[in-house]
Amino acid sequence: MIEAAIGIDIGGTNSVFGIVDKEGKCLSESSIKTNEHETAREFVNTMADEIKKLIKGYKEELNIVGIGIGAPNGNYFNGTVEFAPNLRWRGVIPFCELFKEHFNMPIILTNDANAAAIGEMMYGAAKEMRDFFIVTLGTGLGSGFVANGEMIYGHDGFAGELGHTIAVSDGRACGCGRKGCLEQYASASGIVKTVKELLKKNNKSILNEIPEEEITSKNIFEAAKKGDKLALEAFDYTGKILGRSLADAVAITSPEAIILFGGLALAGDYIFEPTKRYMEENILNIFKNKVKLLPSKITDSNAAILGASALVWKDLE
Amino acid sequence: MIEAAIGIDIGGTNSVFGIVDKEGKCLSESSIKTNEHETAREFVNTMADEIKKLIKGYKEELNIVGIGIGAPNGNYFNGTVEFAPNLRWRGVIPFCELFKEHFNMPIILTNDANAAAIGEMMYGAAKEMRDFFIVTLGTGLGSGFVANGEMIYGHDGFAGELGHTIAVSDGRACGCGRKGCLEQYASASGIVKTVKELLKKNNKSILNEIPEEEITSKNIFEAAKKGDKLALEAFDYTGKILGRSLADAVAITSPEAIILFGGLALAGDYIFEPTKRYMEENILNIFKNKVKLLPSKITDSNAAILGASALVWKDLE
Repeated sequence: MIEAAIGIDIGGTNSVFGIVDKEGKCLSESSIKTNEHETAREFVNTMADEIKKLIKGYKEELNIVGIGIGAPNGNYFNGTVEFAPNLRWRGVIPFCELFKEHFNMPIILTNDANAAAIGEMMYGAAKEMRDFFIVTLGTGLGSGFVANGEMIYGHDGFAGELGHTIAVSDGRACGCGRKGCLEQYASASGIVKTVKELLKKNNKSILNEIPEEEITSKNIFEAAKKGDKLALEAFDYTGKILGRSLADAVAITSPEAIILFGGLALAGDYIFEPTKRYMEENILNIFKNKVKLLPSKITDSNAAILGASALVWKDLE
Repeated sequence: MIEAAIGIDIGGTNSVFGIVDKEGKCLSESSIKTNEHETAREFVNTMADEIKKLIKGYKEELNIVGIGIGAPNGNYFNGTVEFAPNLRWRGVIPFCELFKEHFNMPIILTNDANAAAIGEMMYGAAKEMRDFFIVTLGTGLGSGFVANGEMIYGHDGFAGELGHTIAVSDGRACGCGRKGCLEQYASASGIVKTVKELLKKNNKSILNEIPEEEITSKNIFEAAKKGDKLALEAFDYTGKILGRSLADAVAITSPEAIILFGGLALAGDYIFEPTKRYMEENILNIFKNKVKLLPSKITDSNAAILGASALVWKDLE
């Protein structure tokens, strides 16, 4: 019999889930559409059925020890998802409670960046580390901080909102209602905004050949690889804003390493080099050249499942 | 026999020390001049003699369980004070090692703000709290962060440098070599700088009667109490810069409370009201009206001794 945990990642479009053993091997996985379900309860009912099928269909007998869920705006203490802008269900959704109607086992929920941090700590770039943080550069910017070997959930379960610290005074309008939040600059959508601003000043770029509303961070990465100056400038500017914010975050928690994860982090040196350079340029002298800036080591397509399942093992410790 | 700890606070001018019982009662205390000693070893020799006298002179028999030391730029992991600008001894000073030549017991050292945080957790405003941070508004700005009931020392022992996060882009020059650090604005010396800037624009203030180089934060407090508009404006500006930085720090660690400590915090509502107002104005919606802004509850003259002694009890836990 194999001991395993269920990992679930609830995303705006797709929700993925899988069976993961303690060594971080994903034994089986599947997905369902998230927003096709009228209510959160219907969504959970469908997913519970699919998970049971997955367990039944696996070739060997499984001892499922718990379920870990990563979700936007997930609250670890309450097991809820609260006011997530990307989900169709409004207000506070008691996901852990809904899943408990189907499974009699520990169910742990947190936000996706925290799940990613625990995944890195168990299986990835932060093995053996007690003090680090992860920054997920996707559509938005998520973050998860670990100190003394423990996730910082904060008093209310919502710690780790680095994406909503003010990076540029009176800067770009943010969905949160304020101006200049870091995620408006350092994220896949942030770099697209930067490119659009740069194109208004100077149209000598191969990105000018793409209709403005179709430009993606991937296009920008491709252009940078071809040596496009405007694309390179956009990466430099993104790294500048991110590097400065990381320097300030380092002064608070003094981590051993910062891990960059998610779509924009896949641009490799194009994003790592300027981020590291501006971080060092702006960091307090006692921290200079001490903090590693590392890529995630969980690069499988099922990274989100792995991170979510790691919540279970971490909780059982 | 009474169980007690020794608390030592090493300051730029005076170093105070005392015997404290587990309930936080200071049984006996004394002080020596810090910078009158040629070497750190001579300083420690003198202090060790004085501590032994203090123990011997106490009316009851004492069982001393350990020594806690709070010091500027103190490193918890190494037991050292590293490159402290206010001490005459340069470089890395192994204080714990030097004290161990005189005392065969656990000796714990950290920076003064961390010691204050642990003091608040054991005896003050943060009793029973697991997630909070303290901001000390003295000549500079120190800070100590607690998450999951544990001090965040960080990977290298230097976490909690909120005073050296950039609060104003390209702002006032800081002793650390950078520009716009929070402590250049939110500290006793910071508010004096603000007043001097304001006096250049407008000299209708009773503070104008004091020679510029003699203005202190206490003068500004006194002027504010008399309704002096320029002094009130200086407090408002200080609260604005501090409140914005606190809002960003909240987004990272999501504390239950923030405790303000030190000279400038004694100005009460004059500093608390604008700080709280600007913090709430700038904070991410999910944290609004959740985070308490509290005055320190350790208001004795021997607060620093108490905080340092608390290190011992915390370590014995």
